[in-house]
Amino acid sequence: MAVVLAGGTVANPDGAYRADVRIEGGVIAQVGIDITRAGDCVSDVSGKYLLPGGIDAHTHFDLPLSDGTRTADSFSTGTKAALAGGTTCVIDYATQFKGESLRRGLDNWHRLSDGKCFCDYAFHMAITDWNESARGDLPGVVSSGVTSFKMYMAYKGSLQVDDGVIYDALGQMASAGGLLCVHCENGDVIAARTAELLRTGRAGPELHPLSRPEAVEAEAVSRLIAIASLVGAPVYVVHVSACASMKKIIEAKMEGSRVFAETCPQYLYLDDSLYAPGPEAAKYVCSPPLRGRENHGGLWASLRSGLADVVATDHCSFSFAGQKDGHLDNFSAIPNGLPGVENRILLMYKGVAEGRLSLPAMIRAVSYNPAAIFGIYPRKGALIPGADADVVVLDPSGRTVISAGTQFQNVDYTPFEGMEVPASIESVYLRGVELFRGGKFAGGAPTGRYVQRGASGALG
Amino acid sequence: MAVVLAGGTVANPDGAYRADVRIEGGVIAQVGIDITRAGDCVSDVSGKYLLPGGIDAHTHFDLPLSDGTRTADSFSTGTKAALAGGTTCVIDYATQFKGESLRRGLDNWHRLSDGKCFCDYAFHMAITDWNESARGDLPGVVSSGVTSFKMYMAYKGSLQVDDGVIYDALGQMASAGGLLCVHCENGDVIAARTAELLRTGRAGPELHPLSRPEAVEAEAVSRLIAIASLVGAPVYVVHVSACASMKKIIEAKMEGSRVFAETCPQYLYLDDSLYAPGPEAAKYVCSPPLRGRENHGGLWASLRSGLADVVATDHCSFSFAGQKDGHLDNFSAIPNGLPGVENRILLMYKGVAEGRLSLPAMIRAVSYNPAAIFGIYPRKGALIPGADADVVVLDPSGRTVISAGTQFQNVDYTPFEGMEVPASIESVYLRGVELFRGGKFAGGAPTGRYVQRGASGALG
Amino acid sequence: MAVVLAGGTVANPDGAYRADVRIEGGVIAQVGIDITRAGDCVSDVSGKYLLPGGIDAHTHFDLPLSDGTRTADSFSTGTKAALAGGTTCVIDYATQFKGESLRRGLDNWHRLSDGKCFCDYAFHMAITDWNESARGDLPGVVSSGVTSFKMYMAYKGSLQVDDGVIYDALGQMASAGGLLCVHCENGDVIAARTAELLRTGRAGPELHPLSRPEAVEAEAVSRLIAIASLVGAPVYVVHVSACASMKKIIEAKMEGSRVFAETCPQYLYLDDSLYAPGPEAAKYVCSPPLRGRENHGGLWASLRSGLADVVATDHCSFSFAGQKDGHLDNFSAIPNGLPGVENRILLMYKGVAEGRLSLPAMIRAVSYNPAAIFGIYPRKGALIPGADADVVVLDPSGRTVISAGTQFQNVDYTPFEGMEVPASIESVYLRGVELFRGGKFAGGAPTGRYVQRGASGALG
Amino acid sequence: MAVVLAGGTVANPDGAYRADVRIEGGVIAQVGIDITRAGDCVSDVSGKYLLPGGIDAHTHFDLPLSDGTRTADSFSTGTKAALAGGTTCVIDYATQFKGESLRRGLDNWHRLSDGKCFCDYAFHMAITDWNESARGDLPGVVSSGVTSFKMYMAYKGSLQVDDGVIYDALGQMASAGGLLCVHCENGDVIAARTAELLRTGRAGPELHPLSRPEAVEAEAVSRLIAIASLVGAPVYVVHVSACASMKKIIEAKMEGSRVFAETCPQYLYLDDSLYAPGPEAAKYVCSPPLRGRENHGGLWASLRSGLADVVATDHCSFSFAGQKDGHLDNFSAIPNGLPGVENRILLMYKGVAEGRLSLPAMIRAVSYNPAAIFGIYPRKGALIPGADADVVVLDPSGRTVISAGTQFQNVDYTPFEGMEVPASIESVYLRGVELFRGGKFAGGAPTGRYVQRGASGALG
Repeated sequence: MAVVLAGGTVANPDGAYRADVRIEGGVIAQVGIDITRAGDCVSDVSGKYLLPGGIDAHTHFDLPLSDGTRTADSFSTGTKAALAGGTTCVIDYATQFKGESLRRGLDNWHRLSDGKCFCDYAFHMAITDWNESARGDLPGVVSSGVTSFKMYMAYKGSLQVDDGVIYDALGQMASAGGLLCVHCENGDVIAARTAELLRTGRAGPELHPLSRPEAVEAEAVSRLIAIASLVGAPVYVVHVSACASMKKIIEAKMEGSRVFAETCPQYLYLDDSLYAPGPEAAKYVCSPPLRGRENHGGLWASLRSGLADVVATDHCSFSFAGQKDGHLDNFSAIPNGLPGVENRILLMYKGVAEGRLSLPAMIRAVSYNPAAIFGIYPRKGALIPGADADVVVLDPSGRTVISAGTQFQNVDYTPFEGMEVPASIESVYLRGVELFRGGKFAGGAPTGRYVQRGASGALG
Repeated sequence: MAVVLAGGTVANPDGAYRADVRIEGGVIAQVGIDITRAGDCVSDVSGKYLLPGGIDAHTHFDLPLSDGTRTADSFSTGTKAALAGGTTCVIDYATQFKGESLRRGLDNWHRLSDGKCFCDYAFHMAITDWNESARGDLPGVVSSGVTSFKMYMAYKGSLQVDDGVIYDALGQMASAGGLLCVHCENGDVIAARTAELLRTGRAGPELHPLSRPEAVEAEAVSRLIAIASLVGAPVYVVHVSACASMKKIIEAKMEGSRVFAETCPQYLYLDDSLYAPGPEAAKYVCSPPLRGRENHGGLWASLRSGLADVVATDHCSFSFAGQKDGHLDNFSAIPNGLPGVENRILLMYKGVAEGRLSLPAMIRAVSYNPAAIFGIYPRKGALIPGADADVVVLDPSGRTVISAGTQFQNVDYTPFEGMEVPASIESVYLRGVELFRGGKFAGGAPTGRYVQRGASGALG
Repeated sequence: MAVVLAGGTVANPDGAYRADVRIEGGVIAQVGIDITRAGDCVSDVSGKYLLPGGIDAHTHFDLPLSDGTRTADSFSTGTKAALAGGTTCVIDYATQFKGESLRRGLDNWHRLSDGKCFCDYAFHMAITDWNESARGDLPGVVSSGVTSFKMYMAYKGSLQVDDGVIYDALGQMASAGGLLCVHCENGDVIAARTAELLRTGRAGPELHPLSRPEAVEAEAVSRLIAIASLVGAPVYVVHVSACASMKKIIEAKMEGSRVFAETCPQYLYLDDSLYAPGPEAAKYVCSPPLRGRENHGGLWASLRSGLADVVATDHCSFSFAGQKDGHLDNFSAIPNGLPGVENRILLMYKGVAEGRLSLPAMIRAVSYNPAAIFGIYPRKGALIPGADADVVVLDPSGRTVISAGTQFQNVDYTPFEGMEVPASIESVYLRGVELFRGGKFAGGAPTGRYVQRGASGALG
Repeated sequence: MAVVLAGGTVANPDGAYRADVRIEGGVIAQVGIDITRAGDCVSDVSGKYLLPGGIDAHTHFDLPLSDGTRTADSFSTGTKAALAGGTTCVIDYATQFKGESLRRGLDNWHRLSDGKCFCDYAFHMAITDWNESARGDLPGVVSSGVTSFKMYMAYKGSLQVDDGVIYDALGQMASAGGLLCVHCENGDVIAARTAELLRTGRAGPELHPLSRPEAVEAEAVSRLIAIASLVGAPVYVVHVSACASMKKIIEAKMEGSRVFAETCPQYLYLDDSLYAPGPEAAKYVCSPPLRGRENHGGLWASLRSGLADVVATDHCSFSFAGQKDGHLDNFSAIPNGLPGVENRILLMYKGVAEGRLSLPAMIRAVSYNPAAIFGIYPRKGALIPGADADVVVLDPSGRTVISAGTQFQNVDYTPFEGMEVPASIESVYLRGVELFRGGKFAGGAPTGRYVQRGASGALG
């Protein structure tokens, strides 16, 4: 039996227009006017927007830290929250730890996630040990559908790799067809500044942003671009937090480099005033840290004009009680990360409602661009015939107040507490099945599937 | 009776995907899989691309010059050539000459075009006399559906206006909802350089590019951006020919300004080596002139990455014999302009075939972006339900050689002579009617309609 | 009889060092240790700095405005104030008005100044009417020792010339060996903004800065640089007030252009908070206007690093009572300009004392660079053998409070009222004769001489 | 007995002017006209330029490499060549090797140089092991007169330090009053590219420049500036070879950073065409490598305009036979470095003669600026009273052809072979004693003295 979502406005990456959507066998069969057939189940969505399901290209579920801590959200709770928030596919960072092969790291992530996900999911692979085995595994991993990777220029002594590794890996990526995502902050300088701060005797969470100022990010972005240019390989910069960094990316695009820029809702809405001294500051410890308010305008403008590519969440949640608050005497030991996978679609729509970017520009940032860049378009990323019927029904006459008290995320706070959005998510379809409606899940076992991806980097 | 274009690949601004298109009553009714109904007329387009009809946002048909010359192409020949080349809508520059009211200028253009156009058409309005009457007319002209305008920073003594006029006009545009397009070249400097060149005693067409080098364009772009920033109004820079100019536009976008950039096929494919001394150089006299080859890469990169917005033609044709060759002893009297409305879609597809930009990026540049920027989306600009069924069937297994001998343009040469494109235009539909097929017109009277436009500037 | 200034510290453009200076026949004969000879008149300057006499490259004395007003300071009062403030040579802008020949303009200025000056003086020539006669006069004027000129991009309808004139004049300057100084503000935009402001009904002096914001200056600087680059001629930008403009000049230097930058004490110390509504705002009406405080740091840094070249005053004084306050209801009619020729040396030394720039960097900006750029080095500009013995004895243990009540400038206020400088000018020598000492003039008739200059532009 | 150099033109950092120089007790007593006294020994230098002795701020004499090789020039041969070439003071890089204390490194250099130098000499200290002992030694070393240091961002595994070390060291320098000089090339990327090149099987000296392209230098410069900005400390970039790098330095100056730039004659005159395949390419193996010719113009312009600060040689000589030619099968093992200490003054004067920069600009680059930046002004760096009487008598009517056959440098080739300079060095005085005249040394034991320096960084 086919489903027709009738009477709504399709919000596609290239514009919003009145049309019905007919779903058959889990995929979109037709988009058009007057498409209902006998026997179809028609759902009236008049007055609503139909969005392609959100794709969150940056999550960390079930991630173990080196000190034994584990993120508050597992694949189970995390993907449930994602779905409730209009995100129907996440791309999580499977991590190869020191001494492991890529294959082994990937297997670990499959084991953690298989059968537990409420939305669809795929993996990037974070590489922390670029050894001969990793080099050898790379082509196989790419051809198996994990076509993007990540390296860290920060986290000295644990995740960080040096510039020679990035150079060499980019060369291998270029021939294997992989896209390298990079966490850009200068880890050596951060370590030196952290030591310097700790020598002063003060060490509260309010010092966290001082240990890694904007220049530390902008420098690393600039360096990455120089290295990628030498190789002639595309790169993807995760979680750009500052205008200075974004400017460097855009300059590189202008000179013909293929550099993609991702930013996150926290860098668009929150600012460093949240690091006022006191234990609460620990809630906002993430890297890069929240920046000065003066960055917001430029980041929004980058999205509006298409100069920035993706809005993801970098969801990496730790509860305040027992996790974030465990090292109030040493900011450098506080687990880094914020929750957010549940809030991204509505927070971006808030930007649309407030005139900061157009609806199509939003759809490109939250769904189409990540799909195109990470090799899952046209299967996902737009409401087009043949695509998975991942559909978000958004009610622009609704109203949502973000709050820890009502969230699905398995964490005891939200950095967006109290923020109002002039819209609500009425329902969410995953591959044609309405799994979430009116704030409630349909129930039943998780049905999210692993998504094998095609070649990355195909935008533009 | 409905028509179904079945089995092809829809090339939309946000991606290319397998889908059928069903046309009913001149508009697109459905896009999807399995959409044929009983009684439909099915046209098999398997192996073909279906493109939204091209929109050429910059033409000059039937334009009189001050010396009595008139462009070689009238609305009749020009729109026929457009259609044959896959362009289903042109936006021509109606011109208000000195002493005229805006209304009068517009009436003149309607008189020249009404009932003569083979494709749909709309008007921008070029303003050369910003007097109180023009100021007063502006809101009415905008609300009548002419929502974009043009001013010239060049052509001293005829079309050129000064910076104060641009400043004042931008303020009025901002309140009336009009978008100002600007020809950016420093006319005062050009006049001085021209005089300087003429004093040397040499005056052949090969001197034309020396009279208006890149810096003269880049300077004017930069100045326009500064003025627009003061006003807070968007602007659209026509025919950007040089990387230096494009760079200034992109920097402005990066800083949050709303500046749109248009370039043309001649600046992407041709270069200043065509100005070798000799009468043939006159064929390439256009302003801005063709630039050095080193500009091509950057302009293509701008399109690929979405930093440039539109590819239009600035079609303004004069025959070599009797028009272009009439002033071989004084380059400054040679009528400026090139033909090209017929070649744009195939030339841009050539870029796709050669890997310079993606197919969606091409569609955005030749159809979607001009539609969105100039207020005719979603009526035109994408193959979506409810849109005019303007469809180009492009055969990627065909082959086209551009040649004056076979063109529809009413001019005795083409600057693209001999250029090969690995594709051909199989047929063209205008509002659901196939007017052109296999290189021939269906015959019959012109059916192009005037398009009243909505507010300009709505991209991004 | 020779004079020896003994025991002081010579503050030369390339450093400060302990040495005596021996003056003979009005010129410096020796700089060294142990140079006193029998019969010399020794003046003990221990604990003092010996500075080469200041050169103020930008003054307007006895300047008539088009409405019949005349600047408050004549050559007599102006050069007296200059000398009292440590400036021993001024370069005033002789102006060719519309319809005049250059010769005629120059003769006028000679008539106004001959026999009236207390310090030495030279002329630049401001050209407001670039006609064939001016073109023809140029080489003769240059070879007569007036080797620099000025054109205005602002003051539409009176002084302003268009870009073609600047282009053409630069070509002539290049062959005649003249240096063009340019007032960079976009006069067309200023006129349009002024009209816009006046249409609102408010017109007090506080609106003056709104009529000519920074962007209007930076744009003109950028345009001038583009034009000069086309010609390949050097240019000198007078009174740079904003970092945005300075940045464009420095970028041009970096690309090999020869662009000199002048700024003024008012742009280093005063800011736009002085334009608070009220009649007093009229005192600060000058063009370019005072800018936001955030510009100060960058301008000082430009001087410190040698990226900016000259500090001059643009002294153009009008009394508040009767001149500045005569058009409180129409800011656009208030005569533009500030006094300051008397305060430059001490204000710049204040910068040295406060650590903003080094003493040699100051000497370069106030004396050496103007001498080198405008063709009077090595006659003036440094305390070196053979140079005119123009010497300022500065006491770093003194203290000066700038005040209208105690100034020599013939004007009823000073924009620097109440400013304290931790130093005082003990005495000033002009060509070996001590004319000013302990706050008093030696008396006697003016002895300033006209300085015929060599080729301009020879710095670097 | 005093010596008077009479009748010449003093070429000082702030201009060239006719004056005599009187030397007494090894220092300059007077500069002036008519300064000869009874009993003075007068040397007629009419028609000659008197230059302050050159200061070469970057030499490596007697430097051991890790493979046991030692530079061809010792302090004895190197300083003799320096003197013959008009350089009267060198600042050599004493090196602290891994495991050594700073003191120990310094003692080593004193042992190598004491009593062996023909010109005066001072030391910077290269730090390769930033351990707690080095940190502790720093203030003492600074106060002992070694006030500048060096760190390497290149030479992975031997000299290279990481960004955290640079950050921390800059902090210590800032409080101790030391200036950090930095070799800016990204050593990690160089190592990766070198490995990549070696994997191809080809390894001749022509591959050397490919292993370290311009971007690798410009990136490191940019990174250093970012780090120094965070600390608020000045830095000095040694041997800038490419315009891209210089541009970054100038941009930083413009933003108020205190960054000094040094370049070398080899980067102004030689280019990468010298790396044509063949053994001769080994002669030009130095780091950074010679660049494309297109860099020359910009580097000269930087010097002319004062945007670049210093021209030094990075003299680090190895003979072709037996040293440079020992690893023709592996470019990465060829000892890096070029001779040049003997040629700098004449090569820069060649630039003056050819109109590339002014004589004062040259004097600033080769003598005054290094003296001011490295704390030996006013003792050296200008011909001013009280300064050491280090004087070069240059004959602008002479002619010199640079050639290995006639050089004093202890090396079997010169990269400047055959280059002609339209001038010759007639004689050289060190502290008042003429040691070199007419191509010959006066004979006698070395008399060069160690120079204890004051605080570094005092330019501007």
